[in-house]
Amino acid sequence: MKYIVTGGAGFIGYRLISNLLVSGHSVIAIDNLCRGSLSNIAEFSGDPNFSFHQVNLDNYDELIDALPPFGNLYIDAVWHLAANSDIPAGVKDAAVDLRDTFMTTFNVLRYMQAAKIPELFFASTSAVYGDHGDNELTELTSPLRPISNYGAMKLASEAQICAACESFLRRALIFRFPNVVGTPATHGVIYDFVNKLKINPNELDVLGDGSQQKSYLHVSELVDAMQFLVENTNKKYDVFNIGPDQDSGVTVKFIAQTVLNIACPNAKIKYGLGSKGWVGDVPRFNYSIAKIRDLGWAPKMKSQQTIELAVREIFEELSR
Amino acid sequence: MKYIVTGGAGFIGYRLISNLLVSGHSVIAIDNLCRGSLSNIAEFSGDPNFSFHQVNLDNYDELIDALPPFGNLYIDAVWHLAANSDIPAGVKDAAVDLRDTFMTTFNVLRYMQAAKIPELFFASTSAVYGDHGDNELTELTSPLRPISNYGAMKLASEAQICAACESFLRRALIFRFPNVVGTPATHGVIYDFVNKLKINPNELDVLGDGSQQKSYLHVSELVDAMQFLVENTNKKYDVFNIGPDQDSGVTVKFIAQTVLNIACPNAKIKYGLGSKGWVGDVPRFNYSIAKIRDLGWAPKMKSQQTIELAVREIFEELSR
Repeated sequence: MKYIVTGGAGFIGYRLISNLLVSGHSVIAIDNLCRGSLSNIAEFSGDPNFSFHQVNLDNYDELIDALPPFGNLYIDAVWHLAANSDIPAGVKDAAVDLRDTFMTTFNVLRYMQAAKIPELFFASTSAVYGDHGDNELTELTSPLRPISNYGAMKLASEAQICAACESFLRRALIFRFPNVVGTPATHGVIYDFVNKLKINPNELDVLGDGSQQKSYLHVSELVDAMQFLVENTNKKYDVFNIGPDQDSGVTVKFIAQTVLNIACPNAKIKYGLGSKGWVGDVPRFNYSIAKIRDLGWAPKMKSQQTIELAVREIFEELSR
Repeated sequence: MKYIVTGGAGFIGYRLISNLLVSGHSVIAIDNLCRGSLSNIAEFSGDPNFSFHQVNLDNYDELIDALPPFGNLYIDAVWHLAANSDIPAGVKDAAVDLRDTFMTTFNVLRYMQAAKIPELFFASTSAVYGDHGDNELTELTSPLRPISNYGAMKLASEAQICAACESFLRRALIFRFPNVVGTPATHGVIYDFVNKLKINPNELDVLGDGSQQKSYLHVSELVDAMQFLVENTNKKYDVFNIGPDQDSGVTVKFIAQTVLNIACPNAKIKYGLGSKGWVGDVPRFNYSIAKIRDLGWAPKMKSQQTIELAVREIFEELSR
């Protein structure tokens, strides 16, 4: 198969491309290198099945200019991962998620229609649900009330993709991720904690009171799940939660302590106030993956193991 | 109260402003006059409580330039009605609904944050639900799967408004309308049929086989319902279906026949194929208004009476 992977130089993009190439597919990676980096994908550079284009996807003309003319390439599907990954930045300035989370999707769809690419696999998020307290979140949970601009623009993207399925796409698969961790880390709570401790090894400042409780999935399991769904489903439009199984997550306090144990066992943790790390932060959620589990996929790790593994990996990466 | 009404020179805008001025409120109307027209609002021009600004809301700078500087005006709320109203045009070219249905909302929110306007009343649509066949559509119906870019960009707008409630809006009310009819008509099935018969009084061409069955609400009842909800609800974010009560709607066949009876009783109706008028058309839906009814509001007319009244009004308007 021939794929385009947007956000291909990012954290999840790297892992996905690695798997796709090993499986014998060919990949055109696109990234604006804003958070992604060429060093993440350097190992693919000699592979004849791999090419990379630096493109700001919010600019349609850049996309058209970068890729070969439509007639000269047949692409089976786009994996659309490109998006803003700094949720607080998007809450501060709505233009960030408009540009990086929604307009990227809009332009990918426009390109797919013009280039007649039939299938889209889309990285969405648990943030489309908003704050439902302890209620279990299934793909049918209602109402959808995103509380961050990131969640809003992911929901907007899903909506636009759904409409595109009615008019020109042959198939679209929507993956709703919880928090994903692992390497090559470019952002996220573990990455932030390790970096903060490098600056001040005596004290770790935590946003919020540490009681925020969330599910975490390791990037290797996420990529495995997405590939499983591509191969084992065939609806024109379908939506799947992907996350740890029957797991109510771990607290920020647990993550802070795990980072401390490895990085600076003698440092002190200083908590902030309130259960939210920032405006738009969903303080706790309870994620159901029954739909994908019923198809035969389940992750091997719980949030706790995932965090412990990712902390070791990220600490090692940042210590190099 | 001091209000901004976007889409103020349009079909629903005219009726709303008329009511607001009668109730003693003052209104700043905004419209790009693309479908709305100055003749619709000519009767308000001498009113000291009314002003009009021609603005393309997809351009934020135009909005800022048109209105008085932030410090000089206190606005209680925005009624945001501006949107694309030509659904097939938006399906043909996604840029239409991006610009007119979503970017208008995005810029209205940006302006409200800057100008510290606390409340937003938003004209959304039954099209956010997509095609659920005969299942009753309540505000909690799930999943939301819009099949037109119009529905997608209204859902995107709702999502962005919901996130804004978390960060700066004091209150937002979302109204999901079915098809709304009445005068001053600028578009819609009755308007199209009457105009087609003017061009060819012998034959009326109908898109689809005429079996599409939808609910219709008269614009006067819609405006009444919106004002009722503004006065009788107080949640930070709330969503209401507004439509006829316990009414499965009327068919396009019924509308065509009603128009014929008044306009050209001897003309023949020529139907197309299929149950959809166009890509993105939801062929039938069954709308629940139990939520607003429980608060004490219900419309006086069913879809059938609404259509009969609107056909007479629109025929008379277009015969002038």
